[in-house]
Amino acid sequence: MSPRQASSPPLAISGTDLAGMLSTVTALVTRFLDDMPRGPAFDDADQASFMADPSVRQAPGEAGRSLVELLNIVDRAGRIGVNVIAGNSLAYIPGSGLPTSAIADLISGIFNPYTGVGFAAPAMVALEHDVIRWLVDTMGLPKQAGGLLTTGGSMATLSAIACARERHFADKDFSAARIYLTEQAHHCVAKGAQIAGFQQSALRLIPTDRHLRMDIDALSATIRADRDEGLQPFCVVANAGTTNTGAIDPLEAIAAIAQEENLWLHVDGAYGGFFRLTERGRERLRGIEHADSVVLDPHKSMFLPFGTGCLLVRDQGALRRGHGAQQSHYMRDLGDDRPDDFATLGPELTRPNRGLRIWLSLHLHGVAAFRAALDEKLDLAAKAHQALLDVPFVQAFGEPELSIACFHCALPQATLEEENRATEDLVRLVNDRRNVLLSTTDIAGRVVARMAVLSLRTSAETIDRAIADISIAATLIATCSGSGARDVRSGYA
Amino acid sequence: MSPRQASSPPLAISGTDLAGMLSTVTALVTRFLDDMPRGPAFDDADQASFMADPSVRQAPGEAGRSLVELLNIVDRAGRIGVNVIAGNSLAYIPGSGLPTSAIADLISGIFNPYTGVGFAAPAMVALEHDVIRWLVDTMGLPKQAGGLLTTGGSMATLSAIACARERHFADKDFSAARIYLTEQAHHCVAKGAQIAGFQQSALRLIPTDRHLRMDIDALSATIRADRDEGLQPFCVVANAGTTNTGAIDPLEAIAAIAQEENLWLHVDGAYGGFFRLTERGRERLRGIEHADSVVLDPHKSMFLPFGTGCLLVRDQGALRRGHGAQQSHYMRDLGDDRPDDFATLGPELTRPNRGLRIWLSLHLHGVAAFRAALDEKLDLAAKAHQALLDVPFVQAFGEPELSIACFHCALPQATLEEENRATEDLVRLVNDRRNVLLSTTDIAGRVVARMAVLSLRTSAETIDRAIADISIAATLIATCSGSGARDVRSGYA
Repeated sequence: MSPRQASSPPLAISGTDLAGMLSTVTALVTRFLDDMPRGPAFDDADQASFMADPSVRQAPGEAGRSLVELLNIVDRAGRIGVNVIAGNSLAYIPGSGLPTSAIADLISGIFNPYTGVGFAAPAMVALEHDVIRWLVDTMGLPKQAGGLLTTGGSMATLSAIACARERHFADKDFSAARIYLTEQAHHCVAKGAQIAGFQQSALRLIPTDRHLRMDIDALSATIRADRDEGLQPFCVVANAGTTNTGAIDPLEAIAAIAQEENLWLHVDGAYGGFFRLTERGRERLRGIEHADSVVLDPHKSMFLPFGTGCLLVRDQGALRRGHGAQQSHYMRDLGDDRPDDFATLGPELTRPNRGLRIWLSLHLHGVAAFRAALDEKLDLAAKAHQALLDVPFVQAFGEPELSIACFHCALPQATLEEENRATEDLVRLVNDRRNVLLSTTDIAGRVVARMAVLSLRTSAETIDRAIADISIAATLIATCSGSGARDVRSGYA
Repeated sequence: MSPRQASSPPLAISGTDLAGMLSTVTALVTRFLDDMPRGPAFDDADQASFMADPSVRQAPGEAGRSLVELLNIVDRAGRIGVNVIAGNSLAYIPGSGLPTSAIADLISGIFNPYTGVGFAAPAMVALEHDVIRWLVDTMGLPKQAGGLLTTGGSMATLSAIACARERHFADKDFSAARIYLTEQAHHCVAKGAQIAGFQQSALRLIPTDRHLRMDIDALSATIRADRDEGLQPFCVVANAGTTNTGAIDPLEAIAAIAQEENLWLHVDGAYGGFFRLTERGRERLRGIEHADSVVLDPHKSMFLPFGTGCLLVRDQGALRRGHGAQQSHYMRDLGDDRPDDFATLGPELTRPNRGLRIWLSLHLHGVAAFRAALDEKLDLAAKAHQALLDVPFVQAFGEPELSIACFHCALPQATLEEENRATEDLVRLVNDRRNVLLSTTDIAGRVVARMAVLSLRTSAETIDRAIADISIAATLIATCSGSGARDVRSGYA
C-alpha cells in the first residue's frame, strides 16, 4: 500500500530490528564521543555546504530513506557549531551532555511511560519523586516541599511566578502587584512575568553593590515606598549565583525582609544551586533554604544533556494551586484527588519521562562524583582568576564567587569605550583561534569577558590554553593601540 | 578522592565505555520491546513490592551503583502500569513510543547541541526548522508561518494564548478580554489562560450541537453581546478533533467569524491535526488552514514518545512578540536580530534538541508510513463503531469523526444514573480482564465509555478482543440488573 523502500523499517519495529539499528547508532555516538574532545571549540568548516546540500535540506518524501544515510547527516550536523563535549567552551553557560543521562532518555523513549499521572506509570513516577526528594534535601528545604522537573530554568521560573501570583492574588486583579529583582537577574524572570500577564511596570529593579549583589537597604526602601503608593509587593527574586558573573545575593538578609514583608522569596539557583553539594558552595549559598521557590538546572551544574530544569517549592500545594486543578472530562476515571501527579503540579499534561535522566546518572555515578566535579570547577575558576591577575593589559574582575572568572582589557590612557572595543576584540581574537570559546557581558556599561567553567571536560589544560590565548590577544591589542604597557594586575571588586 | 566503586564509570565517560554500556542497554530495550506486545493492558503485579523495596526507593549514595543493578530496577519500573507498547490501551489518548524517535533522543543527549540559538548548533537548528516547515505545509498554512516544538499540547496552548493576548493587548490591561470556546475544549486552554494571568471570567463557554460541535450562531451572538457590554473579544478556540470524542468544530464557519470579528483563531489539533495527512482527515478538517495558531501533538498522532508537541503560528513574528524579546547581558554576543532562534520564538531559553526526534523518524519511515498508520486507525475506529452497534445492552455514540468510538450501557427501564453506573461498571469489568484498557468521559451528565484508537500496535485483533470483553461485561451487567433484554442498536448522534 505505501511506497516504502525495502530498507525502511516499519513504524512498529521489532526488538531484533531495534537491536540492529542500535548497533549502528552505537558506532556513531561512540565515534562522536571519542572525536569531539580533540575538536576545536567551534567548528563551521562544513556549515555552508551542509546548509546548501539538497540531500540534507529536503522535505521528507513519501518513501523512507536508509538509516545510514540519515545518520551521516546527523553526524555532520552534530559537528557544526559550538563543541559541547570537549570542555573548551567557556562561553555563556557551557553544557556537557552526561552520556549516562542520554542513555536514560533512550530507555524512556522506548518504554514511553506516561508520567503525567501516577496511575499510568506508578513506578517511574515514584523514581521521579525520589529524585525530587533528593533535590529538596540537597537544598535544605523542609519535608513538605515539593517540586517539578521542567525543560529548564525559564519554564521553572514561569511556574514559580504563577505560583507566587496565585498565592497572593488567586483569581483577582494583580495590576498593582510588584516583583523585586536586580538588573543582574536572568531575563527569564521578565519573560516569565510577561507570559504570566504582568505588565513591565510590575518589575522593580533594585540596585546592586559593587559585587553585583542586591542592595538590601534599597530593597526595603523600595518596598516601603511602593506600599505607600498603594502598590502590592508580593515577590522578591534573589540570585544564588547569577548566570552573568556568579554573583550571590545576600540570601539570608533578603529572606528576612521577605518574611517581614510577606513576600514570596524566589531564588534563582539555575546555575549556582548545585554548588551546595560542595562545602564552599554550602557556605556561600547560606539562606537558600529559606526560599519559597528555588530554580535549579541539572543540565547546567549536574552536567546533564540540555532539557532538564527544576522548580522546588516550599509548599507543594502551591504548585498545584499555581497551575490550576482543571482536568478534562475524559480524565474523570483518575478522580480529583491526585496531589502528587505531575500533571496537576505543573503546566504540562503530557511530558517526557524526565526523572530517569537524573535518577540513573545520580545512582550510577554516586553523589560524590558530582561533588568532586563541582569542586574541581570552583578550583579551576579560582585558578583562571589567579592567572588573569598576571596577564598584561587585562584587569581581572573580583575573585569568582562560583565558577565564572571575568576580566576586561585595561589599556593605558584608554576611554571606557576604547576598552570596551578592545575587550570585544580580544574575545574575538581568542575565539578565532578556536582553542577555547569565551563570551562577553555588559556590567553597567563596561564590556566584560567571561570564562564560565562548568563543562565536564574543562580541565587545568583548558584554563592554561585559554590564558595563553588571552595573553597573546591582549598583547596584540595593546601593541596595535600603539600604547606603552601599563601593567594592571589587581582586581577592582 | 571520591568513594566511587570500581564499577562506577567516570562522569566524562569514554566512547569505548559508552559502547559497553549501550550494549547492556540494547539488550534491555530489545527484550522490553519483544515482551510488551504480549503483555496485559495494565500490570500492577509488581507494584506493591517495587514501592516498598528499600534497594529501589533509596536516596542516591555517595558511591555509585552498578549499571546492571540499576537497569534491573528500571526494567521493573517500566513494566508497571499502563502498557503503552502493546496497542491494547484504548483509554485516554494512548501513546506509542516510536523507537526510531527514541534513538534520536539518545543521539541528541550524547551530542547535546544547544538549539536555543542558531549560532550554537546551526545545522541541528536547520533540521528542526525543516521539520517545522513540513508541519506548516502539512496543515496548509502559508509560507510566512512559523512554529515551535514544545513538550506537548499544554505548553503549545499556553504559548498560543500568550501570542494572541500580546497581539491584541501588548503591555496593556486585558481584564476585559474574552476567549470563546466550547465545553469540549481541552482543559489546557483554561489552565494556560490561568497561567497567562486571565481570570476565570475571561473564558466564555459556547454551547455545542448534538455532535458536540460549536454552535456558531451562539458564538456570534455571544461575541455581539459581549461587545455591547464593553468587553473585548479577542480569541476563539476551535477543536480539530476533541481529545474527548474526536468532534470537529465547524472550522470554516468559525474562521469566517474570527476574521469578521478580528479574533485570533486558535485551532486545537493536538489529537486530530495529523489526520490531515489522510484523505478523509483532510476533508473533515477543512478550514484548519485559516488558523492563526494550531496545536499539534506528534507524541499522539505521529506516534512519537511522550514529550513532543507543536505550536504553529500563521505569522512567525507573533511567536517572538508573544514571548518577549528579552535577553540577558551575558548573551550580548548573539546580537539582537535573531528572528529564527527558538529561544526568542518560545518561552524556553534552553531546551532539548526536539527537532531530531521528528526529523529522523519522518525521513527514515517516509510520510506514507505515517499516512497509512493513520488511515488504519480511522478504519479500526469505524470497525469498532460498527461492532458496537451489534453489542446488546450497549448504545453506540455516532459514527466516529476520527479515531475515537464511544458508547454507553443501555438498560431497559433504567434511569440515567443507573445507566451511568452501569457504564462505569462495564469499563471496570473490561479493564479488570486486562485484555484492553478503556476509559470513560462525561457528556452533559451522561457517562460515556471511550475506545481511543491511536496506538501503533492497535490492530483488528485488539478491536475484536475489546468488543468481546465489552459484550461479556454488558451482558453480565444487564443480567445482574435483573432486567429482560432490550436490544438497543442504533446510535443516537
